[in-house]
Parts: sequence; C-alpha cells; structure tokens
Amino acid sequence: MKLPRLWRASAVRAGTKPSGDLDLALVVSEPPAAVAGALTSNKVPGGHVPVCREVLAAGKAHGFAVSAGISNSGTGARGVRDARAFRKMVESACGRSPMLVAATGTIGPLLPLDAIGAALPAAVSALGPDASGAAQAICTTDRRPKTETVAMNNGVVITGMCKGAGMIAPRMRVSQATMLAFVLTDAAVGAARLRELLGTELDSTFNAVTVDGCESTCDTVLVAANGASGVDCEDDPRFAEAFGRVMAGLSRRIAADAEGATKVVTVTVTGAASDGDAREVCRLICESALVKSACWGGDPNWGRIAQAAGQAQCGLDPERLRIAIGPVALCVDGLQTGAEREAAAHMSGDEVAIGVDLGLGSGRARMLTCDLSPEYVRFNGEYTT
Amino acid sequence: MKLPRLWRASAVRAGTKPSGDLDLALVVSEPPAAVAGALTSNKVPGGHVPVCREVLAAGKAHGFAVSAGISNSGTGARGVRDARAFRKMVESACGRSPMLVAATGTIGPLLPLDAIGAALPAAVSALGPDASGAAQAICTTDRRPKTETVAMNNGVVITGMCKGAGMIAPRMRVSQATMLAFVLTDAAVGAARLRELLGTELDSTFNAVTVDGCESTCDTVLVAANGASGVDCEDDPRFAEAFGRVMAGLSRRIAADAEGATKVVTVTVTGAASDGDAREVCRLICESALVKSACWGGDPNWGRIAQAAGQAQCGLDPERLRIAIGPVALCVDGLQTGAEREAAAHMSGDEVAIGVDLGLGSGRARMLTCDLSPEYVRFNGEYTT
Repeated sequence: MKLPRLWRASAVRAGTKPSGDLDLALVVSEPPAAVAGALTSNKVPGGHVPVCREVLAAGKAHGFAVSAGISNSGTGARGVRDARAFRKMVESACGRSPMLVAATGTIGPLLPLDAIGAALPAAVSALGPDASGAAQAICTTDRRPKTETVAMNNGVVITGMCKGAGMIAPRMRVSQATMLAFVLTDAAVGAARLRELLGTELDSTFNAVTVDGCESTCDTVLVAANGASGVDCEDDPRFAEAFGRVMAGLSRRIAADAEGATKVVTVTVTGAASDGDAREVCRLICESALVKSACWGGDPNWGRIAQAAGQAQCGLDPERLRIAIGPVALCVDGLQTGAEREAAAHMSGDEVAIGVDLGLGSGRARMLTCDLSPEYVRFNGEYTT
Repeated sequence: MKLPRLWRASAVRAGTKPSGDLDLALVVSEPPAAVAGALTSNKVPGGHVPVCREVLAAGKAHGFAVSAGISNSGTGARGVRDARAFRKMVESACGRSPMLVAATGTIGPLLPLDAIGAALPAAVSALGPDASGAAQAICTTDRRPKTETVAMNNGVVITGMCKGAGMIAPRMRVSQATMLAFVLTDAAVGAARLRELLGTELDSTFNAVTVDGCESTCDTVLVAANGASGVDCEDDPRFAEAFGRVMAGLSRRIAADAEGATKVVTVTVTGAASDGDAREVCRLICESALVKSACWGGDPNWGRIAQAAGQAQCGLDPERLRIAIGPVALCVDGLQTGAEREAAAHMSGDEVAIGVDLGLGSGRARMLTCDLSPEYVRFNGEYTT
C-alpha cells in the first residue's frame, strides 16, 4: 500500500490482541497535516472520541496512532484520561505534536498503557513508506485489511485504510463520528476544506453502511492532508471526486468484509416524498433480520421488503409500491408479479441489488448492507468479552 | 383448551398451508359478544386490517375466522376486497353477522377464497367446545400452539390463543394493531370497557415483545366477551387482573416459541428520565443482533448492552450506567466489575434477565425478546416465498 509523500507508517505488537497479532499502528507526516474527522454519535463513546475532538478543533496534526484489541469504551472518565495519556505517549515517542489517537476492540477493559508505552519506541523506529502493516494492525474481527488508493494525474496521492466488520451502523457527525477509517494525502488542502469534503461524502459512504444496525462506541474517520505534493487542491473538483472515490471504496470494503457475510446487498429507495423518508425506508430494509436472512438463503422474499418498508413512520402508499431484486420486478403497484424464479437467479451471486420505489416524489437514498448468515451468529455468540 | 360458556370452535383444512395441516379456524359465540381489538400500524397492512376495523367500530361480533398460510398482505385493494369477501362467506356459512376475520402467512399471494369457501361448511359442522384444533390451525412457523386460560372464582372463564414466532415486533394501536391473539370470555363486559382494558395491557404485553424487530403487516389482537356467565365484570378489578394475566401469559409464550430461539430474554430498564426513554433504550437492547447473539452463546458481553443503550436518542450519562445480567452487576457507574464468570453461569439457563439502570430518574420499561441463533437465520433463509 503506497503512502502519499512524506507520510510514513509502522505497526508493532503491544500485546493488546489475545491472538498476539500486530495491534499498534502509527502513521506520521513529516510536515504538520491539515486534519478533519467524524466521530460516533453513540452516547457511550470511547475515550479517544473527546480527545480527537480537541485535536480536530485545531485543524492540524502530525498523524495518528491506533490501538486495536481493546476499544477503551465503557471506561468512563478513566477512559478519557487514558486516551489523553495515550496521546501524550505517542507525541513524546514521535517527538511531534499534536497526534491523533484511536482505539477499537472489546468494550470494558482499560487500555494497557504500560504495554503500549513500551511498544511505541519500536513503532517509531519502524516508520517507513509502506502502510500494509498498519492496515493489518488496526483490524479486529476483519477477515482482511481494507485499503484504497487513488493516484491523480497531477501527482497527488490519496490513500485510505479502514477496519470494521461488526457493530457497524455508523451515524457519525463531522467533528463530533467501530469502524475506523483514515484517509491520507499529500495534496495541499486546508482543514476547513477537508472538513467540508468529509461532510459532503460521509452520509453517502460510511454512514450509508450498516452491517448489523449496531452503532459502535468508537466509529472514527480521520482525514489528513500534508501538502507534500506541492499541488494546491483546495478548489480542485477532481480532488473532491478522487477523495469521494476513496471514501466510497473503503466503505464498500466494510460491507464486503462484514462478519459472516457472503453477499454485499445494495438497497436503493426512490420515489420517496423526501430524501429523509427514502433514507428511513432504506435503513429499515437494510437492518431487517428477515430480509438479510432471505438474502443469505437466496430467497426472493419481497414480502419481507414490503413489511420492512411498511414499518417506516414516513408517508407510504402500499398501492404505489414497486419492489425489484436485481433487474426483476417482484411487486408492481403493491401486487406481486410472480417473477420469483428470475429474481432467485440474481440472488445466487455475491451481490444483491434491492430496489424499492415508493411512487410519491423524488426523494432517494442508497445504502449498503450484507446478508445475515448463521456464521454471524456463531461468531458473535463465541466472541468472548 | 377449555372455552368459556357458549363459545364453540373448530378447525379444518382449506389447503392454504403447503404442509396440508389445519389452516382454517372458526370461533363462534352463540350470543353476540362485545369486542375490542388492536391492529398493526405497519403501512402495508393485511387486507383484514381495515375489515376488522369496520367491525370493531360497531363493538359487537359473533366471533372470528382465521386463515393461516397466506397473509393476504402485499395484495393492495384486492386484498381488502378479498378480506371482505372472506367475512361475507364466514357470516353466510355461520348464519351470523358480523364476524371478524384475520389471516397470517406468506406476504404476496392472494387469499384462496374458493378453497376457503368450500371448507367453511365443514368448519361450521365441526364447531364444538374444544379449541385445541383452532389454536393449532392459526399457527404458521410456530413450534407449538399457544393458549392461556384463567378460571376465576366467580365462575368467569377467560381463554386466549395466539400465534407468532417471527416477524414479531408489534406496535399495535387499539382499534387501529404477524402475531395474532384472540382472548374470549363469558364475562359480561361492554365493548368500551374491553377496549379500555386492552389499551391498558397492550403496551406491557404484546407490544413489549420483539423477536426480530420486524413489525408484521398483520398483527391483530381481538378480545370478545359474550356475557354467557351472567357475571357482570364491568367494574371488577379481579377481572381486569385476570385479563392482564392472560395477555401477559400469551405474549410471553410468543417470546418463548420464537423462531430458532433457545432462551427467553427479559430486558428491564430503570432510572430513565421518562418511561418513554426507558422504552427506547429497552427496545434497542432487545433488538440488537450483537446482544442477542451473545445471549445465544451465553457470553456476558455487557459492552454490547452499553453500546445498544448508547445508540438511544434520549438522555444517557455513561458515568451513571449500571448493567446487570441476572443478579450479577457487570458495570457500575459506567465501569466494569469483572464479574463475567458469575454472569456466564446465569446465562447458561433458558432464561436471561438483563437489567440496565440509567441513574437519571424514575422512568422504567420492560420488554421480552429471545436469543438470536444460527437456526433463526437458517430457518428464514430457507423459508421460501
């Protein structure tokens, strides 16, 4: 995984993961980078959430460190103090300030600060141009690391990495957002513009992914631009487009790598009275255990899609409802078409597209989810605190 | 299953269930009975929902017929016409009017009116004092029929039957509420009082059960009192109490018989700023796939309970949060106690009690759910449209 200019990364073992895998990632920019972020809106946030908010308010940072294995959430005021201590340790080891920090993993236990402190010097020594280890170290229940790189014609590079496979239904707010995502670039872009770009892309990318409807305590997206390319991208629409592609690519990888998932499911709702209404219906369909089980089984059970849509509080006229799976209309004007067999063929692949039109207006929304498999339940029944 | 006086029931096969099992239930009272009901608030309601509403508005009926196997929802205006035709057929076959009707089963297909019409005369001929067949006939994915009877000291009998195992998260409204439940009595109680009693009990019984967060298109509770005991129970608090016991007993049986479930999970939230806030937190915990998977696996993963609570929009202070599983406190003032081993012992049984105190006020709520098992997913992945 290629890093943008003057960005370096490393990963070491601090012993935070029971598996003994890489668990501490460090990513540092030589020059201070403009930063923006989005953090969870969960009411029981991880300790790093307020600490990130403080750093993000200043709009500048030299990079970030991530501890994976223990999320440092469900740890109250102590968790915030520990996150602050983590930040100080990182700043001291790197000789740079400010640094951002994040954590992910089990809820409840305290961050093993001594072990992290002991491992940090090795992480600093190991800093180099390859971020593969860092992308691996931030993972927990992920099957694979998730990265996305766009190299623009003007020489600017945008590189992102993210983690997250379960407890995924982010509803992040910019500068307030357990998926973690980090997008780095050597473009010259100010913090205000980064924040604006993040706000533009967030709702249609990470906030439009739901694996299980469970909004994590630690969801964090951090975006940083160190300007090392010397290319001013402040008002460049091509940079905005490339940034959007990295955000979309990373968020899609989360749906594809979701716990137990065998299929990526895209739900598109059109014809709602408003975009907000479309989003409500979209989320209900994406988070329906019955719809997701049917996706796993390859069963074109459109009645469950209608049921999930009908659970919405928004305006909905059953007589105007159209439901399609892939290219196959299964319900038109609220009545079945009988094309289940054709729809079942579409569902046998590893991508399922569900389309719902409410026939009321021009509101629309699209979200990504995955199927619900017996494996998801087994995995989460056995994943011990 | 003992029926109250002057109530008779029967069940026959109309061929609506692919299994060929009993699928048409008929329950008739000799005298007209005072009736009240609660029906789904889903925006894609089954055809019988508006038809029941019409009959319930008059407050009197001679009983009801239930067709199981095809829900007659997702059938638009045609479904309402078919439900009305079903009602007329039942009234004509019984020689009594009005009759209530309900249906449950697959969403989408049309009600097989010809087959139902052909089977009705046999159902009328078979009417008798035993309702076991009817309680069986209304079932779909249920493992067992669910009934509850209270015989009061004053001679009054209250008998209920219900069905429902999946797509269970009713949010019924009185006289507007796929579980089906029918409560019959020979008490002398008027429709207005029945409606009042139903309204009092609904939110703490059926509306406080969630199997999968999926609100069905057909949820229906019908309550009928034919007065045949000659005992005036209009203002009798003991009748209210007995009625509440039948409602609570039936709704609990739904949680216990839920699709794939191996445990009944009771979630109690106290200390909220209001009862509404407590209910919001309670529902989030009950509908969390991660909490329910942990219940299946017997894993005292209190962090997931904190995460689910934190997803609420209501007031919540993580520093005041207390979480217990059974008698074991796992989180006090937002911090772990480390008593996972003791809590795991409690979770090994077939009843799990989760208690959450928000430490903010006197608002409280209690709901019933079940664990999420690989079997639920397999069952619903294979249940074909």
